[in-house]
Amino acid sequence: MARKSLTVFEIGHISTPFKVHEGTPIQPKFSGAIGEVRIHQKYREALSDLNGFSYVWLIYWLDRGKPYQLKVIPYRDTVKRGLFSTRSPNRPNPIGISALEIISVDVESGLLLVKGVDMLDDTPLLDIKPYIPQDSIMDVRSGWFNNGIDTETADNRFSE
Amino acid sequence: MARKSLTVFEIGHISTPFKVHEGTPIQPKFSGAIGEVRIHQKYREALSDLNGFSYVWLIYWLDRGKPYQLKVIPYRDTVKRGLFSTRSPNRPNPIGISALEIISVDVESGLLLVKGVDMLDDTPLLDIKPYIPQDSIMDVRSGWFNNGIDTETADNRFSE
Repeated sequence: MARKSLTVFEIGHISTPFKVHEGTPIQPKFSGAIGEVRIHQKYREALSDLNGFSYVWLIYWLDRGKPYQLKVIPYRDTVKRGLFSTRSPNRPNPIGISALEIISVDVESGLLLVKGVDMLDDTPLLDIKPYIPQDSIMDVRSGWFNNGIDTETADNRFSE
Repeated sequence: MARKSLTVFEIGHISTPFKVHEGTPIQPKFSGAIGEVRIHQKYREALSDLNGFSYVWLIYWLDRGKPYQLKVIPYRDTVKRGLFSTRSPNRPNPIGISALEIISVDVESGLLLVKGVDMLDDTPLLDIKPYIPQDSIMDVRSGWFNNGIDTETADNRFSE
């Protein structure tokens, strides 16, 4: 079957304190870092009403990885796992999702301040969605993720 | 600033009972419906180890909407809200995310059965990620989303 290609584009970008994978938090809950999300002018009005929410999903382009592999050793494990059971940044479609705490929203200037960033500086932003209570699912089984290795920051294994 | 375009492509597709927006659940928690996710052969090995998780994020292409508007009246409200404060399917980059319960994973045939589907039948799949406990954030404020309108299924307002 022919692959059907689809086009996405930046709607803004995310500024964070992290220039390289090594030392970057691997999940928002392992990060207290503040990030600045700057939205291109034509989309700013769409930020209205976001300030009523505590958290937001950022959907972004993981633009600084290597080609993906179908099995990888995750940061929090010591053996290879299927890529789709991991949050590795190197994926067939390198799309990342992070739920971040909203600090402030300025619709006019297009600036969204968030806490808990876990992506590299100057990451291209694709979408913003509100975090709703229905996104919170408790008491899930989480496979290899909680095998006992409590790594909270990245090393360079997935870097170019 | 020139828009930087990026390319994504189907890694599989999602079969659901829903042929049109009207009547389709608007969130996984409002749906008990079973969906079949079929992964293209070259990616199947990446499903390994996913069966250790209870829930999975599907990242998919919202392929049957209208052009987006910066403000929309959401299903659960009566006034216009900024698009990025809504989960409307019509977005600058029409990417959807849903956390779904895993029923079964068959790596060899590339078939993932999930419960709680809230997307249309034959939706193009872009990525699969495990749902981890860190994705669950409790006691969030949720703005207009819980204004008292308890709509759980879509109508045709966002359809072509």
